[in-house]
Amino acid sequence: MARRKSLAASSCPVARAVDIVGDRWALLIVRDAFDGVRRFGEFQENLGIARNILTDRLRLLVAADVFEVVPASDGSAYQEYVLTRKGEALFSVIVMLRQWGEAHLFARGEKHSQLIDRASGKPVPKLGVRRANGAVLTPAGTFVKKVPAPSPDSK
Amino acid sequence: MARRKSLAASSCPVARAVDIVGDRWALLIVRDAFDGVRRFGEFQENLGIARNILTDRLRLLVAADVFEVVPASDGSAYQEYVLTRKGEALFSVIVMLRQWGEAHLFARGEKHSQLIDRASGKPVPKLGVRRANGAVLTPAGTFVKKVPAPSPDSK
Repeated sequence: MARRKSLAASSCPVARAVDIVGDRWALLIVRDAFDGVRRFGEFQENLGIARNILTDRLRLLVAADVFEVVPASDGSAYQEYVLTRKGEALFSVIVMLRQWGEAHLFARGEKHSQLIDRASGKPVPKLGVRRANGAVLTPAGTFVKKVPAPSPDSK
Repeated sequence: MARRKSLAASSCPVARAVDIVGDRWALLIVRDAFDGVRRFGEFQENLGIARNILTDRLRLLVAADVFEVVPASDGSAYQEYVLTRKGEALFSVIVMLRQWGEAHLFARGEKHSQLIDRASGKPVPKLGVRRANGAVLTPAGTFVKKVPAPSPDSK
């Protein structure tokens, strides 16, 4: 895959986020990490991904401070890929993708995996964008306030 | 870009979602649509995307029922790309990407665009995964319950 223009300098937080995780493999690697996967070979087997692509994506995710590389937890010679605090914060993104998929990409009655709250044994409740007062917020109820462009004579 | 193995038949809702929107351009096109963009030329100009790639991504998003094509709202000969109800439901995904970006991809004091609640004029509150009782839920507090594999002698 040709490397594309980076969005890392954009003033839009969505663009910067997408620059790092706007990739099917990156998102599936992060999903698997939440599911307990830590080793190269496990990611490769779970995802059915080519070795060179997995190497590339893990390298980018480590460079972006989403994963860190640590010695194997069992004392063996393996390396393990562990989510950083920044990587763990992608949990909400993965949960929203899951909830969108559950609501819109399965036929009625078709079975899908479920994200369960260990404490209650029940599925994790649906998330949604809400106002400060708790009311549901639709896209039309919002607007994006852009960063003003610097004036031409500012240094 | 070579077409890759589809995840559309996966029993994991994250995988099915990623199959459709696990792509930087797809996510940025959806972001722009929430920002009011409707026309091919506007997407192209905003995103600085090659014409053939934009054509491909819009075609896939229409095929996935994320966008529908409608006649121009001003009666001109243009076509417009409008989010379906399923597409509008990606709002939470885009907002979560924004909030992750805001929290982790900007230096302290660095300016970024903000998502504002029109009614209050204030930034949209931070979302997070929560238990039914409102407590914050961390990845470790959850597990994924998989769909059992069909038994070998089931038809």
